[in-house]
Amino acid sequence: MPYVNIKVTHEHGGLTKEQKHELIEGVTDLLSEKLQKNPASTVVVIDEIDTDNYGLGGEQITERRKKES
Amino acid sequence: MPYVNIKVTHEHGGLTKEQKHELIEGVTDLLSEKLQKNPASTVVVIDEIDTDNYGLGGEQITERRKKES
Amino acid sequence: MPYVNIKVTHEHGGLTKEQKHELIEGVTDLLSEKLQKNPASTVVVIDEIDTDNYGLGGEQITERRKKES
Amino acid sequence: MPYVNIKVTHEHGGLTKEQKHELIEGVTDLLSEKLQKNPASTVVVIDEIDTDNYGLGGEQITERRKKES
Amino acid sequence: MPYVNIKVTHEHGGLTKEQKHELIEGVTDLLSEKLQKNPASTVVVIDEIDTDNYGLGGEQITERRKKES
Amino acid sequence: MPYVNIKVTHEHGGLTKEQKHELIEGVTDLLSEKLQKNPASTVVVIDEIDTDNYGLGGEQITERRKKES
Repeated sequence: MPYVNIKVTHEHGGLTKEQKHELIEGVTDLLSEKLQKNPASTVVVIDEIDTDNYGLGGEQITERRKKES
Repeated sequence: MPYVNIKVTHEHGGLTKEQKHELIEGVTDLLSEKLQKNPASTVVVIDEIDTDNYGLGGEQITERRKKES
Repeated sequence: MPYVNIKVTHEHGGLTKEQKHELIEGVTDLLSEKLQKNPASTVVVIDEIDTDNYGLGGEQITERRKKES
Repeated sequence: MPYVNIKVTHEHGGLTKEQKHELIEGVTDLLSEKLQKNPASTVVVIDEIDTDNYGLGGEQITERRKKES
Repeated sequence: MPYVNIKVTHEHGGLTKEQKHELIEGVTDLLSEKLQKNPASTVVVIDEIDTDNYGLGGEQITERRKKES
Repeated sequence: MPYVNIKVTHEHGGLTKEQKHELIEGVTDLLSEKLQKNPASTVVVIDEIDTDNYGLGGEQITERRKKES
């Protein structure tokens, strides 16, 4: 019954349904393989966060992306 | 001053305003009755999560619902 | 498959095992009754927080308790 | 590498981009000044919550705002 | 800069340092491979929760373990 | 009624009570000044995380600290 929360920025139209599936499956498998946790009751929640609302190094990701490009 | 976070899937158009009210009131009452916590400063936050972003048993809830129906 | 996180201060030796049971059962029942959520996959996590680490109104709960007594 | 999550109600059209920047910068500076935490790896996530989904004192913020006005 | 929080029960003396390392490395690799997220700024936090404080199906994990054994 | 959660590593014996006070007061003031949020109902929770349980760049902070020293 592990619970996993993954927060990533919402960019380029957001994650595809298949990418979300890969994350959910991958994390559930990892907990099953490494810790023998029961996959049947493992809960995974993915939050996609607007780049204006996500900060790193005191800056919004929106601004960091501009500098990178 | 307890803090409660409730995460549920966003399905069938989402929770109604009345359902959200019942959750907030019900949890606040529970903490007041069982733990004598002050209801006036009890904070409750409800997150409704897209079924593509919510996983159980390594699968997206979107896919589980298809199998159930 | 709802997920609920409850944060309360750790006071008077902490919650008893029975109080924790009542919270877990009470919240699970509430989600089942009000939202028809499946209790079998409802996850509840209780965090007990040191009163030095919990703030309300800009003050630590440790200090607020001194003023109340 | 501190992680900070700030939850506020979504009101009056939501926070402006500049307000979000001030929060991210302000919290990152606070952790750097008071705890000597490295600002470069400090992560801040802001969640704006619908007032129907945010409860205080057993009531939705939506209802509390009506009484205040 | 993804942020991942993993909550598991604290059982059998807790996770070993190596198990925690495998979780951190495995989740960081997953986000890098599947979403091209920068591993250098990926933050992972593992919470080990007392089995009295973790509920599934309205019961404490402590009680569920007794029934399983 | 904002809610703020701050997660930092538990190092050098942990934060002092005064450091925790400064964080709680500082964040509450920031939300009051920048967003006109009511300080009386602002909740702040500080979590101190073992360095074995905190990962950055796919490594435990415990290991990163060894390389830095």
